[in-house]
Amino acid sequence: MREIVIGAAQLGPNQKADSRDAIVARMIALLEDAARQGCTLVVYPELALTTFFPRWYMEDQAEVDRWFEREMPGEATRPLFERARALRVAISFGYAELTPEGHHYNVSVLTDRDARIVGKYRKVHLPGHDEFDTERAFQHLEKRYFKPGDLGFPVWRSQDAVIGMCICNDRRWPETYRVMGLQGVELVVLGYNTPSVNSQFSGEAGDKRLYHSELSMAAGAYQNSTWVVGVAKAGVEDGHPLMGGSIIVDPNGFVVARAKTEGDELLVHACDMDACNFGKSTIFDFARHRRVEHYGRICSQTGVEAPR
Amino acid sequence: MREIVIGAAQLGPNQKADSRDAIVARMIALLEDAARQGCTLVVYPELALTTFFPRWYMEDQAEVDRWFEREMPGEATRPLFERARALRVAISFGYAELTPEGHHYNVSVLTDRDARIVGKYRKVHLPGHDEFDTERAFQHLEKRYFKPGDLGFPVWRSQDAVIGMCICNDRRWPETYRVMGLQGVELVVLGYNTPSVNSQFSGEAGDKRLYHSELSMAAGAYQNSTWVVGVAKAGVEDGHPLMGGSIIVDPNGFVVARAKTEGDELLVHACDMDACNFGKSTIFDFARHRRVEHYGRICSQTGVEAPR
Repeated sequence: MREIVIGAAQLGPNQKADSRDAIVARMIALLEDAARQGCTLVVYPELALTTFFPRWYMEDQAEVDRWFEREMPGEATRPLFERARALRVAISFGYAELTPEGHHYNVSVLTDRDARIVGKYRKVHLPGHDEFDTERAFQHLEKRYFKPGDLGFPVWRSQDAVIGMCICNDRRWPETYRVMGLQGVELVVLGYNTPSVNSQFSGEAGDKRLYHSELSMAAGAYQNSTWVVGVAKAGVEDGHPLMGGSIIVDPNGFVVARAKTEGDELLVHACDMDACNFGKSTIFDFARHRRVEHYGRICSQTGVEAPR
Repeated sequence: MREIVIGAAQLGPNQKADSRDAIVARMIALLEDAARQGCTLVVYPELALTTFFPRWYMEDQAEVDRWFEREMPGEATRPLFERARALRVAISFGYAELTPEGHHYNVSVLTDRDARIVGKYRKVHLPGHDEFDTERAFQHLEKRYFKPGDLGFPVWRSQDAVIGMCICNDRRWPETYRVMGLQGVELVVLGYNTPSVNSQFSGEAGDKRLYHSELSMAAGAYQNSTWVVGVAKAGVEDGHPLMGGSIIVDPNGFVVARAKTEGDELLVHACDMDACNFGKSTIFDFARHRRVEHYGRICSQTGVEAPR
């Protein structure tokens, strides 16, 4: 048994007016609760430190940049790292990164139990659009404010497990899980900020959107025999509802813990990494069963090429 | 609206002693019911014409070959094709193919409404093993009796839709749907023969196995914005239980029809191919959102390469 007790630390909404200090204080409260329950890893959502700012169209880059972090940990996040180190709890959370070269990414980090950053991931599948879209009920400007991630889908050995990350919309793409699965991933941690309403189809009910989120994570877990921990920022943020539905999925594709609220809420589950072994050595023993000679289009072709 | 009324024609068990004529007569009965209900396409399971013979270990190739078809239509299947032509109902079904060159494949065909074969698919993802396995509760010798398919995952234009096929274990692999999705598939038809018991883990309950089947098909449908019609051969075949659970899944990933029995049973649903358009042009607009530069492992690497 290789058990990691994991805390999925769903966050309620971060309003535009909330300071990073106030938000980090809420993250620390969840961390302390998790430590009391024996967790050695706590996972927070995408863009945990701020509101989901890509819902606004901005032309002033200085206004955009104030949502980004230039260092990690920085002044506001140092107390989180210090508390995590003291409690010996590893953390993973998302934020907006502004690099010294001036590049903007939607990222997440993973630390070890000494609060050292051991992995960084930059979101590959940016949803939405890059110019103001008059057809939408609200904007989703991730393609405007971020560059697509340039690090691929790496995995890291930590806490005697193979751990990978992805962010929000990445979880809907089977390629995300498979690239990590091909590196033996046993635990995928991810955060999301998902509007409760489809900006392009208001008739799509919230329960359908929760279903899509869960379907994608459960399939990714089952088809790669990996744990998946998906953590929402939820509730009404600056007037815009974000769905909750944080879950922990076992390597058999079954949901073993599910958030009940749209606020700050901690799910705790003892995840045995050895539970990945059966699937990886039988039905999803890739070396025995995959037929890469027929997968070429997946890598050689971006869009659809329909038959005549 | 581009509507195809589809019949998912689940079959109950085919016993070893059942003649092909008797089985084809059951298929024709389902076909006639489907025609009465307005269907223009009827989908039958994998290995529809015989028992699931890979559950037996055989060393005599002549004994193996009697489960295979040397021509299609052949003597036993001609009445099915003739009735389908008369009713103007396209059909798709699976069988074991022995080619003139002596190769053995697990295949399915698709006809047009004049009973002309317009597409053939050869199963790519063969599950199981090729030698007698003393560790298993029963044998699953697909890798012994069949060669892996050599045709990839083609799609065909028929009935004003883009249609693809896969077979049984193929449905658990996201690559299957994605290769067809990259060709604009709008309807994936597939059959399966899935034991109700995991031959390598008897503790896996039947409802879990139904969940895995449905999870894989629903995710494939949603993530490629395509209809998926999955049709079982079900019930106790020569003493071995096969699960049912035939379903029709819409391009949003929702099950719109589900079999209630483990016998011959027809599900009918009017499937609008235009329902694929929304997903294909928004969240799963591949040309805008896929990032093939990070998918390389999927095509370049068969098995797992774990980090040090």
